Amino acid sequence: MSINLNDIGKAVLETEYAVRGPIVARAQELERQGREIIYCNIGNPQALEQKPLTFPRQVLALCEYPELIGKAAGLFPADAIETAKKLLAGTKFGLGAYSESKGVRIVREAVAEFIRARDGIEADPDSIYLTDGASKGVQAALRILLSGPGDGIMIPIPQYPLYSATITLYEGKQVPYYLDEGNDWKLSRQLLEESIAEARRYDVKVKAIVVINPGNPTGSVIDRDNIAMIVDFARAHGLAILADEVYQENVYRPGDSFSSFARVMTEKGETDVSLFSFHSCSKGFLGECGHRGGYFEVRNVPDAVAAQILKLQSVGLCANLPGQVATYCMVKPPAKGGPSRELYERERDGILAELKERARLLAEGLNRIPGIVCNPVAGAMYAFPRVTLPAGRSDQEYCMALLEKTGICVVPGSGFGQIPGTAHFRTTILPPTPRIKDVVERIAGFHAGYR
Amino acid sequence: MSINLNDIGKAVLETEYAVRGPIVARAQELERQGREIIYCNIGNPQALEQKPLTFPRQVLALCEYPELIGKAAGLFPADAIETAKKLLAGTKFGLGAYSESKGVRIVREAVAEFIRARDGIEADPDSIYLTDGASKGVQAALRILLSGPGDGIMIPIPQYPLYSATITLYEGKQVPYYLDEGNDWKLSRQLLEESIAEARRYDVKVKAIVVINPGNPTGSVIDRDNIAMIVDFARAHGLAILADEVYQENVYRPGDSFSSFARVMTEKGETDVSLFSFHSCSKGFLGECGHRGGYFEVRNVPDAVAAQILKLQSVGLCANLPGQVATYCMVKPPAKGGPSRELYERERDGILAELKERARLLAEGLNRIPGIVCNPVAGAMYAFPRVTLPAGRSDQEYCMALLEKTGICVVPGSGFGQIPGTAHFRTTILPPTPRIKDVVERIAGFHAGYR
Repeated sequence: MSINLNDIGKAVLETEYAVRGPIVARAQELERQGREIIYCNIGNPQALEQKPLTFPRQVLALCEYPELIGKAAGLFPADAIETAKKLLAGTKFGLGAYSESKGVRIVREAVAEFIRARDGIEADPDSIYLTDGASKGVQAALRILLSGPGDGIMIPIPQYPLYSATITLYEGKQVPYYLDEGNDWKLSRQLLEESIAEARRYDVKVKAIVVINPGNPTGSVIDRDNIAMIVDFARAHGLAILADEVYQENVYRPGDSFSSFARVMTEKGETDVSLFSFHSCSKGFLGECGHRGGYFEVRNVPDAVAAQILKLQSVGLCANLPGQVATYCMVKPPAKGGPSRELYERERDGILAELKERARLLAEGLNRIPGIVCNPVAGAMYAFPRVTLPAGRSDQEYCMALLEKTGICVVPGSGFGQIPGTAHFRTTILPPTPRIKDVVERIAGFHAGYR
Repeated sequence: MSINLNDIGKAVLETEYAVRGPIVARAQELERQGREIIYCNIGNPQALEQKPLTFPRQVLALCEYPELIGKAAGLFPADAIETAKKLLAGTKFGLGAYSESKGVRIVREAVAEFIRARDGIEADPDSIYLTDGASKGVQAALRILLSGPGDGIMIPIPQYPLYSATITLYEGKQVPYYLDEGNDWKLSRQLLEESIAEARRYDVKVKAIVVINPGNPTGSVIDRDNIAMIVDFARAHGLAILADEVYQENVYRPGDSFSSFARVMTEKGETDVSLFSFHSCSKGFLGECGHRGGYFEVRNVPDAVAAQILKLQSVGLCANLPGQVATYCMVKPPAKGGPSRELYERERDGILAELKERARLLAEGLNRIPGIVCNPVAGAMYAFPRVTLPAGRSDQEYCMALLEKTGICVVPGSGFGQIPGTAHFRTTILPPTPRIKDVVERIAGFHAGYR
């Protein structure tokens, strides 16, 4: 045939994405054979019984079929109808036309307003780009930053493999830095310095550092001081920062709170370090993964570079419009006192309370299993426990065996990176609360018998 | 700042995408100043008064907000409700969860059924990948095909600049072949052979040939014989074929009909030439650009290569679910005899009749202008007339001046490629029929006075 495997480029062949790798393929096969599978491999809340929030779905339905506004006004609260009307006017042509490459202006204005209210800082709608989920924004930023095979990007170990996969695909170098498992997976200046020094020894030109906060797969939440340290480090070495903040609403531990890089940088008066920050409709309490809505915001980026970003976005035309609508509803929820507000708060608080409870149950349960140690799940949607394996066994084999024995699908730590000689796996905290205990019990039973 | 223009890679800097280039930026600026602009630069039908079809929007609204099925059954025809129920069952979790990386299985099955019915050939749902619009499918195929800087892809001149932009971005070589303007923009074996011979002279390893049928920007429709010739050419040189068939419903000239590459290849018994074919919800009579729905189908591709395609798709998780629903409605319209059928046919036939009329009016009108010559617009959504310019003037200057004088925004031929020394522009046929005459008159007046 005209194409064969040896025609495929090294970059493509070497790209790995464990979240949907061979273990997931095997899980799907087992499911087709009639086995019940609990998919803990991916942060896909609505696939694990989380219900969509009512307000965004009402707005989406009205935008898709505006005749409902006239014909079925009684079925929709007035603020959902108002929001739909505003969005339809803002798009000018509804959901069926391409928007500007950056996305619909009123959606970007709403995002800017959201950032201002969240952080108490300025935000510019023209520095915001709406994307098909945060993944596409990350890929856009990496495409801009990687200019040749000598360029490197610092990524945490463990990391979310979108980063390693995209860097490999764009023929850049992954420059790993370790997160400090013994210190709640925080970043350590010493480990960052060691990482960049090592990269420079191999003549890698380090362009940027990726930070995922709250952490994926670690479930950590880093504080203002840790962020300030990272900004100082980036400044000292002339790096840009990619701040993956898609789990910003998912903070569970009393005393923790989310601090954005934009806010910390602004408060420090930092105007040199270029920042790309990412957000998504897929996580938080919306969990609207299938709508592929998201955005990234750039700061401290010269106009000439922004023009290049816009050009690349324009080749893909624009992000999908329903996803843009979902993003609008995320950043501009129903106003207090309005008819949708009470239900919105009840749904939001219910989901967040469940996630918080599951995070606690899961980490506590895993820690009770001899041979498994897990940091608290402070945020995000994952636990990343460390497991003691029998000599000669890999975490890949362990996770495959766990799947075969228990139907629980998790991702081996090697898919995210880990200190050599250690073994971990990533599991989401998403199974419904009553099932979390069952998941823990099955893992315990399996682990005790694993040889 | 950490990023500056000289940090940006050559591949990014050299990428060009004229459809949303400087002339469009200027048009937006003029519009903000209060000028009325007629956007003929982009195939965005719903931005030029085309109404969305009712059936897909009803199904989308029901899928977004399934409570409507119970509460508002009287507002929706039974077949729209049935379709929404089927889709919600097929997605398992509705529109809020990531689907399989290839897309929801029942949507892929519907696409396969559509191909079988259209072409009378077999089609496999596992060889179909749902994408965020056809653009993302094209980029996936090019990513797979380009393995290094010595690899080349044959592209028509003129071409749709998604191809040139993506090849540049992936650091491959554009291998241009001319379409024969004097022969209705058909492909000529001789011009193809000259093109590949020239590429080989520079040691370019040619991997594939792109064919856009119906043609963008040319408005041509090629027949079975021309397609068979291209398949023979690809076979003789071991090339894959990228068949961009997004305008397959847009065929206007009596006697012309759309033939798919899949069909012609199957009828010829061709089992060696690898084929990627692309389709989209954005064109045809749906014109649902904002939903970013589309798919690509692969044929004659080894399993090991298909596994690589799937891996790359999985890094992006999945195409947006509303776009997948739009794709379903495109390939599986309301059944004959069902309650939605009559309206569906009326809307479809109305749009296609308007497009046909505009195609005729535009080409005839342009041909009446001294100094402008235009092939018939047999299909797609564009005319690509050739213009005689005063010595020393570029098509870029011409189109910018046209915009400034008349408010009509078109794209210079140089954005698509043309024989050196010739000048063209691309205009869509999308302005409402009563305005098409006005557009032609304004162009005529402008052209007569252009020095």
